[in-house]
Amino acid sequence: MPSLDDDEQRRRVAAAPVGRLATLRADGTPRLVPVTFVLVDGMLWSAVDDVKPKRDNRLARLADVGRDARAALLVDHYADDWSALWWVRIDAVGEVRDARDAGPALAALASKYPAYRTAPPPGPVLVLTPTRWTGWSAS
Amino acid sequence: MPSLDDDEQRRRVAAAPVGRLATLRADGTPRLVPVTFVLVDGMLWSAVDDVKPKRDNRLARLADVGRDARAALLVDHYADDWSALWWVRIDAVGEVRDARDAGPALAALASKYPAYRTAPPPGPVLVLTPTRWTGWSAS
Repeated sequence: MPSLDDDEQRRRVAAAPVGRLATLRADGTPRLVPVTFVLVDGMLWSAVDDVKPKRDNRLARLADVGRDARAALLVDHYADDWSALWWVRIDAVGEVRDARDAGPALAALASKYPAYRTAPPPGPVLVLTPTRWTGWSAS
Repeated sequence: MPSLDDDEQRRRVAAAPVGRLATLRADGTPRLVPVTFVLVDGMLWSAVDDVKPKRDNRLARLADVGRDARAALLVDHYADDWSALWWVRIDAVGEVRDARDAGPALAALASKYPAYRTAPPPGPVLVLTPTRWTGWSAS
């Protein structure tokens, strides 16, 4: 299986605008959502914006990692030319932090995503600490 | 939370070239991989091509669903304009079938993906039977 070296995995993940997050529901099933994120200090930081209590799926992912920290983020590239396919998977443990404890990650989010400049995420922030990086490339 | 109606969810999923699959490893952690797929007869069909025994991540997802059928597929659209964001999540149970038992799904895969016309997937096929569809749209 072709693979991507460590630096290349991190470069591609840092540059990707979106990743797909898996957390674990109380019953152990995987919950999937797309997320925006930044890679800062070796960790993945994803803001939870515009939370509407009891009505919003975005809260569910936070409850998930509070109960079971095991999570994963996938970044990939699809193209009709399958020789251009690649993906990077980060298995991780997640934790929820108040935006005040997110340090430089909030500035990095605002730098990466223009939408966060006009409306900074009120937080909380989901922080993923990687336990394993895996990369694959078709060519 | 804005949502997508049932027909619209299915239309967008059927048209999407790629989805992100979550299965469960033996230790219960979520395993994420991007997959190509078709929606046929209300089920999601994804071929496993070019399997290299003991060397290929693609086998791992099949072992996962053989051990624990619970899986999920996410289809989403990202854009810099966040008012255009949407996603559809399908929670499902998975099973592995021989390509010979995949019926019209193989023809549908070849129709959707030109690469499968020149090199039909030798199978097996991962079949996901949805247990719940969830759709979200920013606008």
